[in-house]
Amino acid sequence: MVRISERMAGMNPSAIREMLKTAGPDTIAFSAGNPSPELFPAKELAELASETFLNESAAALQYGITEGWEPLRQAVKKRMKEKYSIGGEGDDLIIVSGGQQGIDLCAKCLVNEGEVVIAESPSFIGALNDFRSQNTRLVGVPMDGDGMIVDELEKVLAAEPKARLIYTIPTYQNPAGVTLSLERRKKLLELADKYDVMIIEDSPYFELRYDGEQLPTLKSMDKSGRVLFAGSFSKIIAPGIRLGFACGPKELVSKMVVAKQGQDVHTNLFFQILAEKYMTRYDLDAHIADCCRLYKAKRDRMIDGIEKYFDKRVTYNKPAGGLFLWCELPEGCSGTEFCALAAENGVSAVPGAAFDLNEDKNNRGFRLNFSLPSFEQIDEGILRLKKSIDEYLAAKLG
Amino acid sequence: MVRISERMAGMNPSAIREMLKTAGPDTIAFSAGNPSPELFPAKELAELASETFLNESAAALQYGITEGWEPLRQAVKKRMKEKYSIGGEGDDLIIVSGGQQGIDLCAKCLVNEGEVVIAESPSFIGALNDFRSQNTRLVGVPMDGDGMIVDELEKVLAAEPKARLIYTIPTYQNPAGVTLSLERRKKLLELADKYDVMIIEDSPYFELRYDGEQLPTLKSMDKSGRVLFAGSFSKIIAPGIRLGFACGPKELVSKMVVAKQGQDVHTNLFFQILAEKYMTRYDLDAHIADCCRLYKAKRDRMIDGIEKYFDKRVTYNKPAGGLFLWCELPEGCSGTEFCALAAENGVSAVPGAAFDLNEDKNNRGFRLNFSLPSFEQIDEGILRLKKSIDEYLAAKLG
Repeated sequence: MVRISERMAGMNPSAIREMLKTAGPDTIAFSAGNPSPELFPAKELAELASETFLNESAAALQYGITEGWEPLRQAVKKRMKEKYSIGGEGDDLIIVSGGQQGIDLCAKCLVNEGEVVIAESPSFIGALNDFRSQNTRLVGVPMDGDGMIVDELEKVLAAEPKARLIYTIPTYQNPAGVTLSLERRKKLLELADKYDVMIIEDSPYFELRYDGEQLPTLKSMDKSGRVLFAGSFSKIIAPGIRLGFACGPKELVSKMVVAKQGQDVHTNLFFQILAEKYMTRYDLDAHIADCCRLYKAKRDRMIDGIEKYFDKRVTYNKPAGGLFLWCELPEGCSGTEFCALAAENGVSAVPGAAFDLNEDKNNRGFRLNFSLPSFEQIDEGILRLKKSIDEYLAAKLG
Repeated sequence: MVRISERMAGMNPSAIREMLKTAGPDTIAFSAGNPSPELFPAKELAELASETFLNESAAALQYGITEGWEPLRQAVKKRMKEKYSIGGEGDDLIIVSGGQQGIDLCAKCLVNEGEVVIAESPSFIGALNDFRSQNTRLVGVPMDGDGMIVDELEKVLAAEPKARLIYTIPTYQNPAGVTLSLERRKKLLELADKYDVMIIEDSPYFELRYDGEQLPTLKSMDKSGRVLFAGSFSKIIAPGIRLGFACGPKELVSKMVVAKQGQDVHTNLFFQILAEKYMTRYDLDAHIADCCRLYKAKRDRMIDGIEKYFDKRVTYNKPAGGLFLWCELPEGCSGTEFCALAAENGVSAVPGAAFDLNEDKNNRGFRLNFSLPSFEQIDEGILRLKKSIDEYLAAKLG
């Protein structure tokens, strides 16, 4: 018997990732968070790879520095600064192995075991499990249609002197799909100042905007060096290359560099080089616009189906961007029970309990992804969900 | 002011990695741990990459599972089992983002904050800093020409009830270059049993053997499920792709999978696919034999220079494999002072203090790498070291 450390002893694999492994070949997957592979710029990356192997293989395959490939760092800094006012005098930027690593390293550098991380509830399971694996305590703040309810946040901050970090996905939140309003963004920053806590602004989807105005990032409004912006290439280039970045106060980023040395030395250098070439030689903004066109159409297709077929007792939101749509079953129902039934009917969705900070099995929500399935799969999957809803509500509520 | 977590507050960047960043263009680098880029199978990887982009880009650029690309896992399992008897009934294997990640995840899953990790002193700075960043306490065991002195290990185990993990590089140790004898390997496993501690067998170089017989790995002799074998592709394919593996008891590996989900979700999938294709379509053993031929010649060239030019008061070892050679200055000298002088003379070496578990500035050793420099650079670098030794010993000892 191996004695596992306290922090890991109670940890189990992500329910979503396990679900993805076991789904049958005919299952329609609304459970993933995957981008649509037809959007991967494979042809462009293939050309850049051939060129890099030919001209730069000695450098591209050798050890690199932990901070990241300098031309990529500069390109990302420039783009984030010019387009989104992210990154000022007191900030630095590190290239990481996917947005997830930015979150993990930040928490490792800021939060002691036993201290508190505050997050929206429900929230991204990958981040929550990582905070759990660092032996921190999670405290949730509820959301409404304007994102995290900041008055509730203040109550939590007042009650939790060990709170060190607020983890938020302010834009197209995963799983709820909601966006934090401008007024609340300001209030959130004020509260972080007042209670002396740091913020991770996790924003892997913020450029996937389908409706509504673009709100300023928390990072761009941060006057007091409290925000780390965790960005990702997974949804705008491709996730399999594991590439992201984090921009935050220099003192924090320099510690994250040290932590990253111990975790993976540096991020795959070959794809750092490809990403830099892709950003500087092709039109990334035009590519993102293509992504937005496709995902908006898929979102609309899914919502059309929900409107047409779902029992009206099931509510849903219409996200202005991102990859996810959140549905809620009526009182007395369980998302966990429902998703098990849906899986039997050949469609996978993720039960709200997976995202719930207390892993509450009575959570009535379930999350649907619209970026990965084809239009035809969306149509068929919605019909299978309709069947599942009708069966479940009949059995549960009569 | 950002308040940094206790575990990270005292942490600084790796002395070696910082040194590599600041070395001038004319400096001859004996300080790195880099393989020779002429050995990277760039042509083969380029062909495999073109094919993968053409036929499999949708899968190769998409999210993968945390355990690793299944065909690669199978290929590595098969090779390790057949060639080295690594991996049995009770074991599993995870693909990681370089050997470093295997070490980090293993410690995260086994050692609580405040508990003890035992390591050879001196040892690999990347692992030591990672253990420090996990708020564990390091206790060192001295080595001689046969590796870790196991009688000293037993004293440490008896004195440290909080010891949880022994971190060892039994084969071509970094930085000392020594190999643990067969008798000591057996004794080390017995002691781990007796004191109920786990072992990380870090073996990134074990296939780079230039002389002497091949000793069985600790993992292959482990009867009681105490050993995690941390392997790497960095020295036999290329380090920039960040690819390694870890093979250990199923219970441990399954927790490492959960920890990895939180740290980087999975390893760059594209290069996992390339590595599998490379292993199964090309002759990896023949490639490793090519590496060994070149590195043996470089080692011999460096030793010839040392024999010919170094003051006899400076001792050195002759490693039977790996990438490093260890020198020791006479009593009263400091490797740190010496390496600073050598850097002024245009040659970089790493002072023993960097690898010392107590970071003792009076450590008399310094580490030389012979895999990266060319034959000409080895000749010139040795002359610059000779000059530095003569100057240093004259000033220090008269």
